[in-house]
Amino acid sequence: MVHYLGVEGMQRLVARLGVDRLLQRLGQAIADDYRRWPAFLDPAPRQATHVPGGVLEVMPLCDGRHYAVKVVNGHPGNPVQGKLTVTAVGLLLDAGTGYPLLVADMTLATALRTAATSALAAGVLARPDSTTMAVLGNGAQAEFQVLALHQALGLTTMRLFDPDPQASAKLLRNLGRMALPGLSACACASVAEAVRGADVVTSLTAAKRHGDVLQPEMIVPGMHLNAVGGDCPGKTELHPDILSRPDLRVVVEFEAQSRIEGEIQRAPSACRPAPLWQVLRGELPGRQSEAQVTLFDSVGFALEDFSTLVLLHRLLQDQPDATRLDLTPEPADPKDLYSVLCPPASGATSALRSPP
Amino acid sequence: MVHYLGVEGMQRLVARLGVDRLLQRLGQAIADDYRRWPAFLDPAPRQATHVPGGVLEVMPLCDGRHYAVKVVNGHPGNPVQGKLTVTAVGLLLDAGTGYPLLVADMTLATALRTAATSALAAGVLARPDSTTMAVLGNGAQAEFQVLALHQALGLTTMRLFDPDPQASAKLLRNLGRMALPGLSACACASVAEAVRGADVVTSLTAAKRHGDVLQPEMIVPGMHLNAVGGDCPGKTELHPDILSRPDLRVVVEFEAQSRIEGEIQRAPSACRPAPLWQVLRGELPGRQSEAQVTLFDSVGFALEDFSTLVLLHRLLQDQPDATRLDLTPEPADPKDLYSVLCPPASGATSALRSPP
Repeated sequence: MVHYLGVEGMQRLVARLGVDRLLQRLGQAIADDYRRWPAFLDPAPRQATHVPGGVLEVMPLCDGRHYAVKVVNGHPGNPVQGKLTVTAVGLLLDAGTGYPLLVADMTLATALRTAATSALAAGVLARPDSTTMAVLGNGAQAEFQVLALHQALGLTTMRLFDPDPQASAKLLRNLGRMALPGLSACACASVAEAVRGADVVTSLTAAKRHGDVLQPEMIVPGMHLNAVGGDCPGKTELHPDILSRPDLRVVVEFEAQSRIEGEIQRAPSACRPAPLWQVLRGELPGRQSEAQVTLFDSVGFALEDFSTLVLLHRLLQDQPDATRLDLTPEPADPKDLYSVLCPPASGATSALRSPP
Repeated sequence: MVHYLGVEGMQRLVARLGVDRLLQRLGQAIADDYRRWPAFLDPAPRQATHVPGGVLEVMPLCDGRHYAVKVVNGHPGNPVQGKLTVTAVGLLLDAGTGYPLLVADMTLATALRTAATSALAAGVLARPDSTTMAVLGNGAQAEFQVLALHQALGLTTMRLFDPDPQASAKLLRNLGRMALPGLSACACASVAEAVRGADVVTSLTAAKRHGDVLQPEMIVPGMHLNAVGGDCPGKTELHPDILSRPDLRVVVEFEAQSRIEGEIQRAPSACRPAPLWQVLRGELPGRQSEAQVTLFDSVGFALEDFSTLVLLHRLLQDQPDATRLDLTPEPADPKDLYSVLCPPASGATSALRSPP
């Protein structure tokens, strides 16, 4: 029987651990996996299928022990129909046998792992004395980013902007409910206003276009840009001139995929982004000076889902009442798959004859 | 809520429809989809990850309306541990919204759809007067191949060979139980003996190597080779000289994938395989003469899983008691994903302040 983690299971897990603790565990698991990057077999950019209303993507990764796949979509027009922009389903297999271990809703987990990864990157890229974050795009993922970056950097001031004021109001309400120690938040009237005075700028927009949400004049020395919204060709959030700043330090999850989907789609050819795993291992520097502008060009890599699925599966081991699915047949004789559909009975064998 | 089709659900479906009828419906669905091949977006070879004991593969395909993914493994050493060589999980999404519609065990469905596809190809490649089939490899998929090819071609004589005599005995038992009208079957002592007099040769072996199960001298004019066992680089069943026969007509599911995984890995450069979809549409010929040797070089393409998942999902619509999963969060406000984890309560908002 295969573990199943649906929405209710995830709610129970969070009720048991707390969102904070789950974010921390995720961040730790993702960091550990990035640090052992060479153990992963043939990392490849995710395969994306573009349809008129959005994109559908499949993200496999294997370390020889586990094989994880996430299937995820991005449909920016969904919210007007009352639907989520991003949903995801994850599958974890035992690589040694190919048998499934876990089927999981990854919609919530995607928001959590994206935030945990942003926090990891901010830990090596943002100025340690950062206090203020601009949050551009206040939709489904915003709460998780605030939580994770507050946790990682001790940020105390959140400056929110969304073209939809309802989204900012929702985020303000939820932040109020979180009652994070020392945290204050305010909704701003424009991107420029939100970014003013920010040490960290998190952009989380959904529109599939070169949005140029961040303009060159908004960027000041020492800023860390946590660009999370780019996730497919032609979809970026930063004006290309920002990518040409000589003082810009760019860190990516996996360059081959980020070249297709990330902000660095529009980077000058001289741009040499550093892989997050090498920065986390200390093989390459993160932030190099107080005044440097840093960019985590985050598109979401399969490794983060791998880490998440392995962690979720481990957490379910401690839950004896966790839901199970009959996802794999278990015939007594593994070469007798047919018996699963048509169980043996006292059968007619008259049609058969012996070898000639 | 998302449909779920596990082993028990599949058993119920088969009990309702019958394996025969399900195979027919699958064959029809797969044929219909192959005939509308140009409707599918960016078909690509499946992404395979090779581990010491086997291979793990992900197979997505989309027609703009549905998006299907199968995750499948092949671990030839599994049966000695009492496990199936091949297991699979499928996921069907609504391409318009990206929302999941169905999670399904595809282990049984993979055996069924492979057999249904073999039957489709045999319908345009085997001689219409064929009566006898050799079945080389009598493991998990053999019953389904016999059923489907008996159904499609009215074959009456099955000549079985497997290096494991228990596997042949199991297949004989199951065929006896099926009591197919007019069918007789016998276990043979060697590949050569099984192939002697066969009009159709189905090879279904699992070993990951150039097996050369079929030797050139075994092939006689008019034979149809239904080579099902090749499914990864370095794994083939036919001696390469067979591929060089000047009278050989080769049909493949999707050339780009078959070049990587199929028998045509070892074909001479002059080999021009015909795509199954064009043969089914009548744009290219199938068998061209009584004496021609035909080869369906089947590796299994994502389209067959697409058709299967769409059909299974349709069949579940008529089953009001079908199992459902809470795989996708349903927040009242789609931008308020956080509310799924932390439902609104009369919250402290003291940490918040108004816009400056």
